[in-house]
Amino acid sequence: MMQGRFLTIEGIEGVGKSTQVARLSAALTECGVGHVVTREPGGTPLAERIRQLVLVGQEEALPSAAELLLMFAARSIHLANLIEPNLSAGCWVVCDRFTDATFAYQGGGRGLDPHHIRQLEFIVQGERRPDLTFLLDAPVELALARARRRNGGADTDRFESERLDFFERVRCAYLDRAAAEPQRIIVLDAVQSADALCALMMSILKEQAWIS
Amino acid sequence: MMQGRFLTIEGIEGVGKSTQVARLSAALTECGVGHVVTREPGGTPLAERIRQLVLVGQEEALPSAAELLLMFAARSIHLANLIEPNLSAGCWVVCDRFTDATFAYQGGGRGLDPHHIRQLEFIVQGERRPDLTFLLDAPVELALARARRRNGGADTDRFESERLDFFERVRCAYLDRAAAEPQRIIVLDAVQSADALCALMMSILKEQAWIS
Repeated sequence: MMQGRFLTIEGIEGVGKSTQVARLSAALTECGVGHVVTREPGGTPLAERIRQLVLVGQEEALPSAAELLLMFAARSIHLANLIEPNLSAGCWVVCDRFTDATFAYQGGGRGLDPHHIRQLEFIVQGERRPDLTFLLDAPVELALARARRRNGGADTDRFESERLDFFERVRCAYLDRAAAEPQRIIVLDAVQSADALCALMMSILKEQAWIS
Repeated sequence: MMQGRFLTIEGIEGVGKSTQVARLSAALTECGVGHVVTREPGGTPLAERIRQLVLVGQEEALPSAAELLLMFAARSIHLANLIEPNLSAGCWVVCDRFTDATFAYQGGGRGLDPHHIRQLEFIVQGERRPDLTFLLDAPVELALARARRRNGGADTDRFESERLDFFERVRCAYLDRAAAEPQRIIVLDAVQSADALCALMMSILKEQAWIS
């Protein structure tokens, strides 16, 4: 049986990832492509418990190295219990964030050594990488304004409460990765309409001959 | 201010670690040595939440790599929030298990690559190592029989439910580490009486001129 495709959607808060994941899923269904939609950190009950440890602020400080290790622990569970079994069964996996986010947030944002992140990537993933990644890109101020409107003053998580320069570093790290791997990571202008953006993603999948 | 001493007690289930940690603590108190007693995985509220994820069997499988990363995530929190602040304040830290246990259980027991464990050790600890480690050693069958009596048929955790050959590999990995670092890791015969064992530990601390 042919392996399923592993597709990830990346970008900072407020670029419209969740919207595009939902639209892409609907468009794939319309094309008859069997797929699961999932997210990181999380994606399985056990990995979602780790997500809570990482995203919900505690009374106790969470060191950056611990945050990084928890991200990869959740990823290891997600890969073994959801992503790999689906890909092996020929099912596509559409994932809201993956390891590029770790390089962007923990590497770019928190300033952790990318060499350490690459070591962890190898320990957890071996040679497994997404087949294709859509990086939704927008200026930080614009994206964060959109995220704030969406939250409507609700509680922010440990990342959403970071400052502007943190997200500037995250965005830069994302764009650096896209520049280094232009075949895998496609940068898309997230300022365009949601309809146009989804149509563009589908046209790229057609270009790749993944769908007809 | 002088740094506190960092002392760890290691060994498989049933060798009497908890008893010896308690006795050593009482003996140190009698000598007027300020110290905290702690354990791994865990040692702080947040790290204890990770301990639960690792030790309590879930409906969902926990891959060995995830187990390894959770151990080091908990350790990172434990170091930052309890061990380092106490050592800096001149307080001794007596810890029931530390990274030697990871090499023994995840390396020896689960068969994970020791090179990956060393990479994680460096990411989380830098050059930090215990100043001295007491490895309580006993034949596996004898230790496990003692652990079973202690539990009295109560629920076992994910490690306690492992088989004999798992613990044989764990014990061998512990002894290999002691052979490689004889200055730091002192192997003690755990079959002797609890009184004799604690007296021996205290005499070693006197030999090292750590206590008078």
